[in-house]
Amino acid sequence: MNYKKEIEKWGMQEITCKGVSNGNPFTERQIRGCFQGAQETVRVDGFYDGDGVYKVRFMPSFEGTYTFRIEGNYGDKGAASEEALTGTFTVTPPSDDNHGPVRVANTYHFAYEDGKPYYSIGTTCYVWDLQSDERITETLKTLKKSAFNKIRFCIFPKHYDYNLGEPRSYPYEGTPMDSSVLTKDNFQEYTGKTEGNHFDLTRFNPAHFRHIEWCVEQLQALGIEADLIVMHPYDRWGFSCMTREQDHLYWKYVLARFAAYRNIWWSLANEYDIFEHKTIEDWEGYAKLICEHDPYHHLRSIHNCIAFYDHSRPWVTHCSIQRQDIYKTAELVNEWRERYRKPVVLDEIAYEGNIQHGWGNISGEEMVRRFWEAVCRGGYPGHGETYMSDDDVLWWSHGGTLHGESHKRFHLLYQIMEETPGIGLAPYDRCGWDEVCAVPESEKWSAIKSYYLYYYSFMRPSFRDFHFDDETSFEVRVIDTWNMTVEDRGVYKGKFRIELPGRPYMAVQIRKVK
Amino acid sequence: MNYKKEIEKWGMQEITCKGVSNGNPFTERQIRGCFQGAQETVRVDGFYDGDGVYKVRFMPSFEGTYTFRIEGNYGDKGAASEEALTGTFTVTPPSDDNHGPVRVANTYHFAYEDGKPYYSIGTTCYVWDLQSDERITETLKTLKKSAFNKIRFCIFPKHYDYNLGEPRSYPYEGTPMDSSVLTKDNFQEYTGKTEGNHFDLTRFNPAHFRHIEWCVEQLQALGIEADLIVMHPYDRWGFSCMTREQDHLYWKYVLARFAAYRNIWWSLANEYDIFEHKTIEDWEGYAKLICEHDPYHHLRSIHNCIAFYDHSRPWVTHCSIQRQDIYKTAELVNEWRERYRKPVVLDEIAYEGNIQHGWGNISGEEMVRRFWEAVCRGGYPGHGETYMSDDDVLWWSHGGTLHGESHKRFHLLYQIMEETPGIGLAPYDRCGWDEVCAVPESEKWSAIKSYYLYYYSFMRPSFRDFHFDDETSFEVRVIDTWNMTVEDRGVYKGKFRIELPGRPYMAVQIRKVK
Repeated sequence: MNYKKEIEKWGMQEITCKGVSNGNPFTERQIRGCFQGAQETVRVDGFYDGDGVYKVRFMPSFEGTYTFRIEGNYGDKGAASEEALTGTFTVTPPSDDNHGPVRVANTYHFAYEDGKPYYSIGTTCYVWDLQSDERITETLKTLKKSAFNKIRFCIFPKHYDYNLGEPRSYPYEGTPMDSSVLTKDNFQEYTGKTEGNHFDLTRFNPAHFRHIEWCVEQLQALGIEADLIVMHPYDRWGFSCMTREQDHLYWKYVLARFAAYRNIWWSLANEYDIFEHKTIEDWEGYAKLICEHDPYHHLRSIHNCIAFYDHSRPWVTHCSIQRQDIYKTAELVNEWRERYRKPVVLDEIAYEGNIQHGWGNISGEEMVRRFWEAVCRGGYPGHGETYMSDDDVLWWSHGGTLHGESHKRFHLLYQIMEETPGIGLAPYDRCGWDEVCAVPESEKWSAIKSYYLYYYSFMRPSFRDFHFDDETSFEVRVIDTWNMTVEDRGVYKGKFRIELPGRPYMAVQIRKVK
Repeated sequence: MNYKKEIEKWGMQEITCKGVSNGNPFTERQIRGCFQGAQETVRVDGFYDGDGVYKVRFMPSFEGTYTFRIEGNYGDKGAASEEALTGTFTVTPPSDDNHGPVRVANTYHFAYEDGKPYYSIGTTCYVWDLQSDERITETLKTLKKSAFNKIRFCIFPKHYDYNLGEPRSYPYEGTPMDSSVLTKDNFQEYTGKTEGNHFDLTRFNPAHFRHIEWCVEQLQALGIEADLIVMHPYDRWGFSCMTREQDHLYWKYVLARFAAYRNIWWSLANEYDIFEHKTIEDWEGYAKLICEHDPYHHLRSIHNCIAFYDHSRPWVTHCSIQRQDIYKTAELVNEWRERYRKPVVLDEIAYEGNIQHGWGNISGEEMVRRFWEAVCRGGYPGHGETYMSDDDVLWWSHGGTLHGESHKRFHLLYQIMEETPGIGLAPYDRCGWDEVCAVPESEKWSAIKSYYLYYYSFMRPSFRDFHFDDETSFEVRVIDTWNMTVEDRGVYKGKFRIELPGRPYMAVQIRKVK
């Protein structure tokens, strides 16, 4: 048995035990742990990591001394004589950059478990984790410079336009179909086909998962949440059409491996509604498994293609939305907030780029506009990039480098989001018909507010008149969200006019003078 | 009596008679005419034009010899002995530029009475007609160079932001309130107020109407339809809150004066829904008057601020729509076509400019985008321009010169509209989810179509694949609607790919080779 004597709060303890490797350890053997500190007792499932190695992972939510007890039939004495291993370790205070897992806060928003608000600026790189070492290094470098603090990506490889290649590894033992027959014109015929694949869907490939865990750790070090897409339909290997029993084996394995990483979010599926063979009962079944096997209650959602999943289901912690309308998308955040009373995360609002598909060819301007619209309506927008490239490497799927214009503007947006008093912005219902205005969620029902963030979208007013009350002094900043300038305009009281440049994409931030 | 011995078809005959000027000729005297040709007998009302002059106007719809008979109590013998005047004149074929009045054609479209399709490219200059001679000359010069073939404007002066000045004349005898008290900040308090005005609402000012008629004639010479807004609520003179009797006197006077101009359209109101004192019964009453007193059946509609009028009313010939949503506007043409089964004219889709009001500060790009969206969905968009100006002269209200970018792009759009086979474009329901496509209205239900006009709006595809059938040869043109280039891309058959530049605002025109 091997483990760390000391870890930090929300860090990961990993107990490594030697056990048997004969038969099929994935289906025939179990290992479990029970972790006990002064303020919590947590039971977790472990997993077989290959080569006779079994692991149990645990994330402590409190500081102090923990004891643990490992059980299971993984040893060479088998089920008849389960042997229990025990140990003790110390949980120290978290390091400066460790704020714990992200939780829902203030109904519509997020905060780390230590209370620090989490303002999500997401991106999507579906299978960046399954690319070459060089590309992964490049992606991490890009992410480091970016404002992104959430990334959506898959455990399973992706089969789709611009995604005809093989992944670096497979989640199961076996061999794939011959992909040399694939072309840009015929790949759709192979979607969801199992013929030609020879995978043993009862035997995982631990190296595949270990590598994704390494990726999750790299993201953690960058302060980025890993929005893990556990299932998706863009598949030619058969992973999207396994039996329910196979699915459940997979889910339990994923839960046992990933749950103890503090920066994990569970995305049950990308585009759940285009799986040919899955029913709502299936999805509810996976959700039940998560609730049972993730003792840390990581965030959970499920992403649509066309029809929304019922985000009012109690296990859904936040909406993970793909736009339903080409023209209006971020503009509907208010409606979705009211309907679901949960955080609204717009995980796909079209991607910046110029590919042939309409979901992947909006301009940088339009992407940034959608971001600000979403934020000023109290939602959380997501980015992606799909520029044509000679090597068919597109950020949206492969990662690599960014070629667009929108990502450069998110640092400023994030900085403004962070200036929100309290946690999160709410749409201000009493603003003009031709503007969007956010106020602090915590002041939504207050008569007097300390903060207003106005956004004018594609409209180009040359000035705006304001009048909140006659007593309060407000400092005003004019923000060009596209050209990334922030101008201090001084302090005002009573009725006042702010001159604007008559350009699109302007915002005005109005803060009570302290 | 004075009249022309020869006029052209759809030209205007005007019978001028001397009569009494004592008392109040506007309310006490009538003059009527009956015009008879081989194919029509038309009874019309005449009107008092001041200084003892009475006029009866008539627009013939057929060629040949017409006789007429003028009656009424306008003469000095009074009602007891109405004297009838008669005469004869010849109606010649129309001149080359005279295609007759515009009619609804093909359910959703328009054509001149001679059958030539009329593709409306409208603009709005609410009170261009009530400006100085110099400005009117400038406006006409601007219109001459433009692609506009319809203009909306008012008979009554306009009181509103940027419209605090006095008109060149008033429709009634009398004097207005002292407007020196008005400022940009207080003008709204005076809207709809009658105090301080001293107008005799039973005595018209014929010079005011003669001047507007001159404007209508100038428009006619330029091939521009005069979409005459007969009532509107932006008023400080009391014209928007007259009694029903006064309103009816006004309507009959307007109908008698303007109906014989072939390029007149009746817009009952701008923003009918914000008149404080008018009910649907009032509007239906005016509509009834038009139907009774306009024997030429000019186009009739009524324009909303927020709530649409019920465009399904039988007297409404076409929808005259102001957008109801800031973001989606032209995109809703399909829906409105289906709901009303009438031509959809978008008379206000926001104006290009940079004023403080959200209805007047979109970019040229967005205006042109809305135009193409509307056209490719089988509708007719309208323009307006509201750029800040030191002299507060804004095209939208005063005319003058254009400062924007969108108007330059309408010649190309109009040229493309004119290339439509048959009359009018219909939305093609079987196009992709991320594109707009128009086909000829006349081919909407045909299995094989001869013409497709695709539009990609703000999306930026780098190519598109097409496949209509394997037999037809199509010639393809790629149109950059913003940069105004049209590229011939050759002839294609079967399945084919068209490369696009990955820029926004592109269109592809696909025509069967003849």
